[in-house]
Amino acid sequence: MRSALRTIAWLALLAAANVRAENPPAPGVPASTNVRGAEYPRILPDLRVIFRLEAPDAQKVQVQFPAGKTYPAERNGEGFWTATTDPLVPGFHYYFLLIDGVSVNDPASETFYGWGRQSSGIEIPESGVDFYDAKDVPHGEVRERWYRSRTTQAWRRIFVYTPPGYDANPGVRYPVLYLQHGAGEDERGWSQQGRVSQIMDNLIAEGKAKPMLIVMEKGYAWKPGESEVSLWSSPPPAIDRVFGTLVEVFLNDLIPLIDSNYRTLPDREHRAMAGLSMGGGAAFFITLDHLDAFAYLGGFSGFDSGSGGAPFDAKTAHHGVMADAAAFNQRVRLLWLGIGTAEEPRMYDGVKNYHLALAQAGIKHVYYESPGTAHEWQTWRRCLREFAPLLFQ
Amino acid sequence: MRSALRTIAWLALLAAANVRAENPPAPGVPASTNVRGAEYPRILPDLRVIFRLEAPDAQKVQVQFPAGKTYPAERNGEGFWTATTDPLVPGFHYYFLLIDGVSVNDPASETFYGWGRQSSGIEIPESGVDFYDAKDVPHGEVRERWYRSRTTQAWRRIFVYTPPGYDANPGVRYPVLYLQHGAGEDERGWSQQGRVSQIMDNLIAEGKAKPMLIVMEKGYAWKPGESEVSLWSSPPPAIDRVFGTLVEVFLNDLIPLIDSNYRTLPDREHRAMAGLSMGGGAAFFITLDHLDAFAYLGGFSGFDSGSGGAPFDAKTAHHGVMADAAAFNQRVRLLWLGIGTAEEPRMYDGVKNYHLALAQAGIKHVYYESPGTAHEWQTWRRCLREFAPLLFQ
Repeated sequence: MRSALRTIAWLALLAAANVRAENPPAPGVPASTNVRGAEYPRILPDLRVIFRLEAPDAQKVQVQFPAGKTYPAERNGEGFWTATTDPLVPGFHYYFLLIDGVSVNDPASETFYGWGRQSSGIEIPESGVDFYDAKDVPHGEVRERWYRSRTTQAWRRIFVYTPPGYDANPGVRYPVLYLQHGAGEDERGWSQQGRVSQIMDNLIAEGKAKPMLIVMEKGYAWKPGESEVSLWSSPPPAIDRVFGTLVEVFLNDLIPLIDSNYRTLPDREHRAMAGLSMGGGAAFFITLDHLDAFAYLGGFSGFDSGSGGAPFDAKTAHHGVMADAAAFNQRVRLLWLGIGTAEEPRMYDGVKNYHLALAQAGIKHVYYESPGTAHEWQTWRRCLREFAPLLFQ
Repeated sequence: MRSALRTIAWLALLAAANVRAENPPAPGVPASTNVRGAEYPRILPDLRVIFRLEAPDAQKVQVQFPAGKTYPAERNGEGFWTATTDPLVPGFHYYFLLIDGVSVNDPASETFYGWGRQSSGIEIPESGVDFYDAKDVPHGEVRERWYRSRTTQAWRRIFVYTPPGYDANPGVRYPVLYLQHGAGEDERGWSQQGRVSQIMDNLIAEGKAKPMLIVMEKGYAWKPGESEVSLWSSPPPAIDRVFGTLVEVFLNDLIPLIDSNYRTLPDREHRAMAGLSMGGGAAFFITLDHLDAFAYLGGFSGFDSGSGGAPFDAKTAHHGVMADAAAFNQRVRLLWLGIGTAEEPRMYDGVKNYHLALAQAGIKHVYYESPGTAHEWQTWRRCLREFAPLLFQ
């Protein structure tokens, strides 16, 4: 009797041929973000990267980093195109291949939801830095859960990080951080691109952060019949049109769900919210109107000044919550801002100027700059590393 | 002060332009597997599908179903290519776009790890069938966990389905099903393509299946220095070279990890293993040599006859474990085989002939045919629906 396994072998071979290199090993090492068995992209010791694609009938191939440069690829005689980048900044970068002008994924890399689609990603290692690597320490879990939102009348998916020991200590209750992704990303971002579980496992093992739950929700929410509004609508929408339904999801659906399904400490002193970029905007918008529900707040390369586009005025921002700085400083346990020094000027200046305005208004806060990183995940991994140890102390 | 949010808006716009259709609505509805906001692919009432891609500089665009046909796309005057398929069989299909001959993903669809890479996927609804849809029933979780394997000296990731009530009933212990993916897929397959949590939540809510844990591991394992062997190596490798290290991972690393971190019933009477295609091969290979550890066994479009490529002989297969049919029938609580009637003949015949040979040898088993489905996930979702209710009864 012929083994049915052989048929699968043959089917799989057809696909595998596209991503397996057959040449002798090239310089450098395959990126950790490559799919199983893919020899390219390869990272060279100086952090240049060689990309390679078999495309004998293509007219033009490029490698495009949406947060950086686009590199031309050259064709060799056997139908393979290769491109070598400049040295890349360590961390996670989204990228695309442009094949005859069409922006597509590299078949050799894992994909990650960003830029409003599944995008290729590459991890560039940072020498001597391992705070987001898996280590031989106790590990938590990231739990995928679906729930029906009464607000949106639709199914939503969340991811919940539970710290090491959560199952083994059924008498212990935990504080909760709500942690949001950026525009064009979704609830998968922090666990996949952000490596939230590795960062938290390591911080907790070192005694630097308290064990906590981290809830990761989607930053988009619309009621039935409500037209979807995005930040990039023209004219720019009011922020309460962007996050108005999301607030209801958080307060009426999500927080009750978490507090009834997990062993939380269900009060403001044990509840934090932070987010990156657009998620920072959501965190400021939601928490500063609801300080009865949250005591800790973080914005990673993103915030909402609460001034509706007008110049920041501490007396009126967010319905006057900061008008009495002393009272605000006592009520809010942590207001945290972070930004990468290599972010584009209007982003960097936006966060830094808000930091300066808060300081001038006497609003206590922490301001952090991530050296040399842009509006990318390496900035936000570092932000989490700095932010999490300040929570629930 | 200018809101930093605007910059993100602008960045995201660049990417979003590629996937957002601006024309008036076309016939049909967007597939549920489309990325957020993507209007194409669209499914017509007769289950034909319209694909659409903007690629003004491409010379040729096709839509390729690796388990089916390849369809040519036609270009219109504005640089958009569209292709309309024949009516598609309901269920999940991997597909690719061929852009000037290069096989890439459709930017408008979610991606799924299959065919040894991240592949586009499309879900075709089946009229009147909702056993794998999210419903208003109690929901379990799918937990992502990383662990260090002593066998492979490497990090491995698993997904663990915990049934509704697992956290709320800390005194209850559960049986465990180990459930494996197919060749070219990985430990993500069953929760993403297979919808294991929706299927199990629904079966448990209807009282058809017992609450159980389901553990989903990667079907590849190699020791340091061991060269990777795949089913498609030439000449075909012995099956113990393909799964030999995986057996050790299961017995020495994985099962102890599960039994010490989850509230399991840690004996053979409460442990099952099944898999699809290559994973069925692994399930037969592992369990039939280790009936001290497993009492239930399933092969979904895949099995291992245990005869090393020679004709099946119940007296000698799997080291003679079936030689005494009566003893085997008493010891093995369930031996289950499933196959799709639309699978290619050598696959269909392989499973069916094995079923007939088992029957002739007096080996008790259950044989199931999934009507009209091929070597694809709809077959395996149905297999799980049929198989799970027979476990641990």
